[in-house]
Amino acid sequence: MALTHFDASGQAHMVDVSDKAVTSRVAVAEGWVKMLPETLAHVEAGTSKKGDVLGIARLAGIMGAKKTSELIPLCHPLPITKVSVELVPDADLPGVRISATVKTTGQTGVEMEALTAVSTAALTVYDMLKAVEKSMEIGGVRVTLKDGGKSGRYEAAP
Amino acid sequence: MALTHFDASGQAHMVDVSDKAVTSRVAVAEGWVKMLPETLAHVEAGTSKKGDVLGIARLAGIMGAKKTSELIPLCHPLPITKVSVELVPDADLPGVRISATVKTTGQTGVEMEALTAVSTAALTVYDMLKAVEKSMEIGGVRVTLKDGGKSGRYEAAP
Amino acid sequence: MALTHFDASGQAHMVDVSDKAVTSRVAVAEGWVKMLPETLAHVEAGTSKKGDVLGIARLAGIMGAKKTSELIPLCHPLPITKVSVELVPDADLPGVRISATVKTTGQTGVEMEALTAVSTAALTVYDMLKAVEKSMEIGGVRVTLKDGGKSGRYEAAP
Amino acid sequence: MALTHFDASGQAHMVDVSDKAVTSRVAVAEGWVKMLPETLAHVEAGTSKKGDVLGIARLAGIMGAKKTSELIPLCHPLPITKVSVELVPDADLPGVRISATVKTTGQTGVEMEALTAVSTAALTVYDMLKAVEKSMEIGGVRVTLKDGGKSGRYEAAP
Amino acid sequence: MALTHFDASGQAHMVDVSDKAVTSRVAVAEGWVKMLPETLAHVEAGTSKKGDVLGIARLAGIMGAKKTSELIPLCHPLPITKVSVELVPDADLPGVRISATVKTTGQTGVEMEALTAVSTAALTVYDMLKAVEKSMEIGGVRVTLKDGGKSGRYEAAP
Amino acid sequence: MALTHFDASGQAHMVDVSDKAVTSRVAVAEGWVKMLPETLAHVEAGTSKKGDVLGIARLAGIMGAKKTSELIPLCHPLPITKVSVELVPDADLPGVRISATVKTTGQTGVEMEALTAVSTAALTVYDMLKAVEKSMEIGGVRVTLKDGGKSGRYEAAP
Repeated sequence: MALTHFDASGQAHMVDVSDKAVTSRVAVAEGWVKMLPETLAHVEAGTSKKGDVLGIARLAGIMGAKKTSELIPLCHPLPITKVSVELVPDADLPGVRISATVKTTGQTGVEMEALTAVSTAALTVYDMLKAVEKSMEIGGVRVTLKDGGKSGRYEAAP
Repeated sequence: MALTHFDASGQAHMVDVSDKAVTSRVAVAEGWVKMLPETLAHVEAGTSKKGDVLGIARLAGIMGAKKTSELIPLCHPLPITKVSVELVPDADLPGVRISATVKTTGQTGVEMEALTAVSTAALTVYDMLKAVEKSMEIGGVRVTLKDGGKSGRYEAAP
Repeated sequence: MALTHFDASGQAHMVDVSDKAVTSRVAVAEGWVKMLPETLAHVEAGTSKKGDVLGIARLAGIMGAKKTSELIPLCHPLPITKVSVELVPDADLPGVRISATVKTTGQTGVEMEALTAVSTAALTVYDMLKAVEKSMEIGGVRVTLKDGGKSGRYEAAP
Repeated sequence: MALTHFDASGQAHMVDVSDKAVTSRVAVAEGWVKMLPETLAHVEAGTSKKGDVLGIARLAGIMGAKKTSELIPLCHPLPITKVSVELVPDADLPGVRISATVKTTGQTGVEMEALTAVSTAALTVYDMLKAVEKSMEIGGVRVTLKDGGKSGRYEAAP
Repeated sequence: MALTHFDASGQAHMVDVSDKAVTSRVAVAEGWVKMLPETLAHVEAGTSKKGDVLGIARLAGIMGAKKTSELIPLCHPLPITKVSVELVPDADLPGVRISATVKTTGQTGVEMEALTAVSTAALTVYDMLKAVEKSMEIGGVRVTLKDGGKSGRYEAAP
Repeated sequence: MALTHFDASGQAHMVDVSDKAVTSRVAVAEGWVKMLPETLAHVEAGTSKKGDVLGIARLAGIMGAKKTSELIPLCHPLPITKVSVELVPDADLPGVRISATVKTTGQTGVEMEALTAVSTAALTVYDMLKAVEKSMEIGGVRVTLKDGGKSGRYEAAP
């Protein structure tokens, strides 16, 4: 199988999708930000009353999805029709679990948009909390579902 | 210790750094993209001759660092004075290890710029290789060094 | 009636428009910049010969409409098919009256694009004239017409 | 007094500020979104528990301030050092009152950044609430304080 | 024949393309960067092994095409479906010859996207090599092919 | 002499300018758009009364200069302190001659900003006139003056 972002002579290009069908497409991605329990306590205090870390990160994730084709050099610009981003504190991690769902009616998939939403939300969580902890780590960023294009449905192993 | 991105009443704001000294600052961040050995083989073929996945991801990382204050809602815009991004194939991972160094002469730190460079490079690696593997995972994204501001030098545990 | 930008649990999201019909849509918005008569005299001198304040504000309004989905967090990106911006000096105000018309063939309305065009044009008028008057005021920014979607035609009271 | 954004022959240019002193500057702007009492009720419900209209508009205003030099053609890019945006429900209006404070250490003033923050926050309030009312109006957008440059302190009449 | 970017009264606007058919469109543009033979030697050294000037300029050209509607005031935003950029050293020039192909399925042509890709790639070649030569010149930037819209096929004379 | 945009191992990076002095810098670039005499007649009609092609291109050039570090991958973001763009009809070309002057007080030169201003203005001239002529050509794009940095004054041969 070949890397589609390169032509026959190995030069990078933006793949020609002109002849692909305009279909309904969806992708889901996930990730997390691991932190100390006392850092997570700040997050949980915020969601209940003030200093809403997760609300701000959610918005950053949604806006980040719209910037995907500016960030990823060979990504096609896409008319996104839906973005939602979930952020949930998880005491077992400990940290915040993030998941993003993106839809479009277009000629290419939206897994990069979902991954970009998760990454931007995770970076924003880091930014909001870095005054209390610098050792946070972002990980587990992957695609869990992609559906609607010619390559068929993909579901990640749990 | 308080979250600096919120004021006394818990409302988000962009912190006032007007009175912070203009000093020389540096930050280093790292991360990786884990993939199947056969996917990594595509990367290594590319770096030696054609289809340069790592070269493209490096450029995306550098350009991503310049977009940090557009992506992260409460980040200050900063005149970056240096960005470098390293991407190295690692057969033990297996996958690609990424590290980014950012410098500025300014009033706030550049760890968000370094993390954004790493994340954007990692997303681009995913994008370039997703035609051959959808199960890649981005992880280990963290700050390893930050120096030059009032809060002193931070070095991550190895 | 509920706020569509929030899901059932009150979290912000970008509304799913995947199943909305692609229809021809139009929106018109208006607003004004109030100023001293002597400030308006500068504008009128410019339109007749040099120092074309209104021409520059018109262009800024058109370009602003294209930035709507970057500025408004939960706005969908849209393929705008037409933007026009009118700026007319009004001695009775005294000041400049602004009106913008935006069209698309898409799945959501364009009233935010029309409002953003008016606001950006108004801000540019302020910027061009602030050397002679700081007390200008922007107001009357509202939607006067919206048509083409499922919610039907809206026309503002005069 | 002349319009500084035009040269001697009336052509638009970005004013040369190379020789202006780097000083600490601040600007405050304000504005409002007028709406029906029942629309305002939605806002107030949100701030207390869910569907946080004002929190989202605050963030949009802060991010909008960072886009000022992209939106206003002849504005200089500026290293903003602080942005805060206040949104307060006002039953007498009825509607939402907005105020923005922006600081920089630079060679030009930040009143355009403060006005852009207010306008972007106001547009976002409209966007969040337009499903329940289309007749909202944005107004009263003006500079109330500007200080720190050669032209001295400006305070608006109340 | 009239200039379509102005209305009947001579005011600039973004042309209404709402009623134009959605068709498959393509455009090709070309240009060159002329330089001293010893500067070209740096380029050729790079493509064979390290310091890949042409690879970086190719990527900049592709990303530049996606920014066309932000750069050109009256350009419509377009869902680009393909971009490729070729850069070839030419000892006879001496310098680098650039050509870009852009496709869309939309309501307006993509010749501005192709020209912007060529210009951005050419500027990047200049940037990469300016440490060794400041006297490089960019020229020959023109459309060589445009097809797919109502105005029919255009092919430049050789 | 080496290409500064590559490190010792040939990898692209954004050069470290942290230790360069903050000095006053200026650059001037020029270029032209060649067209048929009857196309130029449209331009000249516009500048005298309506349909102001050159005014719009001037503004696009100024705004383009501010986007330089987004377009050119390894360019440093810079606080531009002045941009002016001149466009003059030239019957001998025939066509439009463009020249741009950019200043900054910073750590790197602004020749890329001046070249980007000229290129964006030239592309906009093409866009405004393409309805009447597709065979226009952009050329002669080069730096004519650069001053203020460590590398000293550069003036192009006439």
